[in-house]
Amino acid sequence: MTTPPEQGAILAMDLGGTSLSSGLVRPSGSVLATRCVPVGRSGGGDGVVRLLLAAAEDLRREAEHLGESVLGIGLGLPGAIDVRTGVIGEDIQNLPALRGLSIRRMLQERLGLPVAVDNDVNALLLGEWMFGEARGASHAAMLAAGTGVGGALLVHGRLVRGASGYAGEIGHIPVELDGPPCVCGSRGCVKTYAAGPDIADRARELARSGHSPGLLALAKGDPTRIDAPLVFAAAAAGDPGALGVVARAAQALGAAVATLVNLCNPEIIVLGGGVFEAGAVLLDPVRRWAERYAFAAPLRRTRIVRASFSKAGGIRGAAALFRYERGRPPGETAPPDIPDSQA
Amino acid sequence: MTTPPEQGAILAMDLGGTSLSSGLVRPSGSVLATRCVPVGRSGGGDGVVRLLLAAAEDLRREAEHLGESVLGIGLGLPGAIDVRTGVIGEDIQNLPALRGLSIRRMLQERLGLPVAVDNDVNALLLGEWMFGEARGASHAAMLAAGTGVGGALLVHGRLVRGASGYAGEIGHIPVELDGPPCVCGSRGCVKTYAAGPDIADRARELARSGHSPGLLALAKGDPTRIDAPLVFAAAAAGDPGALGVVARAAQALGAAVATLVNLCNPEIIVLGGGVFEAGAVLLDPVRRWAERYAFAAPLRRTRIVRASFSKAGGIRGAAALFRYERGRPPGETAPPDIPDSQA
Repeated sequence: MTTPPEQGAILAMDLGGTSLSSGLVRPSGSVLATRCVPVGRSGGGDGVVRLLLAAAEDLRREAEHLGESVLGIGLGLPGAIDVRTGVIGEDIQNLPALRGLSIRRMLQERLGLPVAVDNDVNALLLGEWMFGEARGASHAAMLAAGTGVGGALLVHGRLVRGASGYAGEIGHIPVELDGPPCVCGSRGCVKTYAAGPDIADRARELARSGHSPGLLALAKGDPTRIDAPLVFAAAAAGDPGALGVVARAAQALGAAVATLVNLCNPEIIVLGGGVFEAGAVLLDPVRRWAERYAFAAPLRRTRIVRASFSKAGGIRGAAALFRYERGRPPGETAPPDIPDSQA
Repeated sequence: MTTPPEQGAILAMDLGGTSLSSGLVRPSGSVLATRCVPVGRSGGGDGVVRLLLAAAEDLRREAEHLGESVLGIGLGLPGAIDVRTGVIGEDIQNLPALRGLSIRRMLQERLGLPVAVDNDVNALLLGEWMFGEARGASHAAMLAAGTGVGGALLVHGRLVRGASGYAGEIGHIPVELDGPPCVCGSRGCVKTYAAGPDIADRARELARSGHSPGLLALAKGDPTRIDAPLVFAAAAAGDPGALGVVARAAQALGAAVATLVNLCNPEIIVLGGGVFEAGAVLLDPVRRWAERYAFAAPLRRTRIVRASFSKAGGIRGAAALFRYERGRPPGETAPPDIPDSQA
């Protein structure tokens, strides 16, 4: 990596299942402006594309206002981009309307700017690698637990997309052979224990069955009010039911961390996503389980840290993705711009 | 990779817990001569080093006899080599006498030849990548089930050793959060279900407890005669107890294959080691479980194949390792030759 020139800004966008965060970000990672709009459920794929185009145009005007040249667009989204076809993969659970779209080509054509698109957690890891905790690492991994559980890998200083763009999905590895069914069609995935909605579901079941009066009291008698932050608060207050749910989430996340250590032996594992905002009540047992499951020698050399950027992490990641793609060495495979019969 | 000149031979050695296989192998992978000697339990680390030196001298005489020049030595051994210290790691279960030795430096000094040393499964994968099923792959993985369960990864056409040489250990990832204890200190590792000795142990327990009369009959009434091949033979003949043990091994191996697919998205996964010599009785359910646990899209593009070389795979791998190390690009990190205070 060479030091980027401090001129111009990247239109950085982080598309989630419920909202689109966007911003103007310098190649150095500093954020000049931010926006956030909700993603409507109507309008399907076209609706989401219109939203992205509107956000890009809005940021372009902002850049003009600030006297900044626009370098291009970086976009992270919650799914895999097939590296052979450039198309959004079939496993995008949070935004099914985007399935099969060649979003990069569409944005490039409509906006006349270079565009880099990838999975949002790949972008987050690149953000940590360029601007945050993982700076200078040759081998790094990310585990992001929020609405889902995602991951990303960096090996020999390069993002690992794998043969078709699906690499890094640490949230969907089985940690229980006959574990609970997962939305992905498998069972016993890390996600089924540690994603926010799954943590809330388990706590609700406990509250409903009368096994956790403390949780029910915190939810003012209404189990539907229970969400993951409430479960962590109840656990921190010593509620046995909440402690049990958090313990199981920590055990699954510890197993995921150990899998990353024993399989990829990274220098650093970055833990991101809303679930880790629980803090020590989750992080401490995750570390203990990782010690239980991983080889001692590689674990001793692995820094396990919280993500550097909680708020603007997604757009910093999208900017890092753009910078990574534009500065990529000739040998590197990019998602190609091939004609997309489904678009 | 350029085509190697067809002259000279590599002294290739594959050190296991019970025997040392060695041979003269051309850079193209063709085997000119082979040897096999048992590894004695006495003599400790010095004894093993003497054995390696004797085997190398023997092969050197054979090369002279054949009129072949000797290019150097490739050695695979059942443990991790720490990439920062060049020393054999603490997790070498099968040959604890080697713990802490800087074996590469020792062989290099005593024999006056260039030496490449690495984990045996890393060497096996390089053998498949240079000479076998994985030729031309950018992303490949190996899962080898025998006395233990090991693994190796190749990403962007480079072997992944990780930050300290431990990468690839797919046999020691947890597939059951509260599974049986493993020799590595963890629990629920793939190894506890799928290594040959573990398969035999489970079958012996069944036979002893009277739950598998068929197995006991095949073992002529003596449970201590039960080994993994006998369990697979009993399963193929329909014995319910043996079928249960094989089913669980297949489920754990299928989970391991799915973890490789979802985390690394390789083009090919090579299955090696004695356990897979069971054939379809194991391989068919492994494939079915992999389909159950992995994302469909990346799995569709993953070839899952048996290793190309069963007999001389280890020495072909050691030769490939030597060739890989000698032809390594300047940026690649090698295990360094630093002074070894413990040797």
